[in-house]
Amino acid sequence: MSQHPLRTLIETCDAAISRRDFDALMAFYAEDAALVVKPSMVVLGIPAIRRAFAAISDYFDGRLEVTQGAMEVIEGADNALVIMETRLRYPDGHGSWIDENRRATYVFRKEADGQWRCTIDNSYGTALLVAVP
Amino acid sequence: MSQHPLRTLIETCDAAISRRDFDALMAFYAEDAALVVKPSMVVLGIPAIRRAFAAISDYFDGRLEVTQGAMEVIEGADNALVIMETRLRYPDGHGSWIDENRRATYVFRKEADGQWRCTIDNSYGTALLVAVP
Repeated sequence: MSQHPLRTLIETCDAAISRRDFDALMAFYAEDAALVVKPSMVVLGIPAIRRAFAAISDYFDGRLEVTQGAMEVIEGADNALVIMETRLRYPDGHGSWIDENRRATYVFRKEADGQWRCTIDNSYGTALLVAVP
Repeated sequence: MSQHPLRTLIETCDAAISRRDFDALMAFYAEDAALVVKPSMVVLGIPAIRRAFAAISDYFDGRLEVTQGAMEVIEGADNALVIMETRLRYPDGHGSWIDENRRATYVFRKEADGQWRCTIDNSYGTALLVAVP
């Protein structure tokens, strides 16, 4: 069975995050996309998103790993809403690793060149409703 | 404080659902939008979405009421992702009422005429990941 093209795309993005290839990563974002860096902090546009990913990676000492679990895609009107189990793994600063699972929500748009690009990257999903103070 | 235009829009939609005014409701959907009717059942396009809302309302004997709780909106690249507490109230068939709260995810697109229209209506939010058998 072939997998949904957006799963392949997200795998490519997560691999780029893990190896700190932010140029490759940015090819999959719409120019004025939004990234939820953390609850109540959203950045807009590719330059700011690139800086945020670099800062996040630095924060985890360049050792953040992102992989994918279960996924649902709903497509409508050249948008796609991806509901996804996103798995983060990073050092705890004391020699072992922390595993964190999120239920993410990503919005994509099919652009004029036929490519899907991310318009809204919210790895916190509906947890935003409780996470914001 | 003025509220986000999408909150006003969603209030208008939910009021239209509650009074079974499906023509008014459809003005807020993109032509080829998607509606998650229930986990693993998605319908596409205004005619199918209109029929689904009428069937859902009939199922609840015309007495489904939809109101709104907490909301977060993330805007990027002419899309908006709305994370919302959606409150459903309907008769239990034995003379009393059932209250059901969902954490919904709605995707909107700002269209050429400047109006926000819904492209993906998923009232199940990230619960889709566990709800699908």
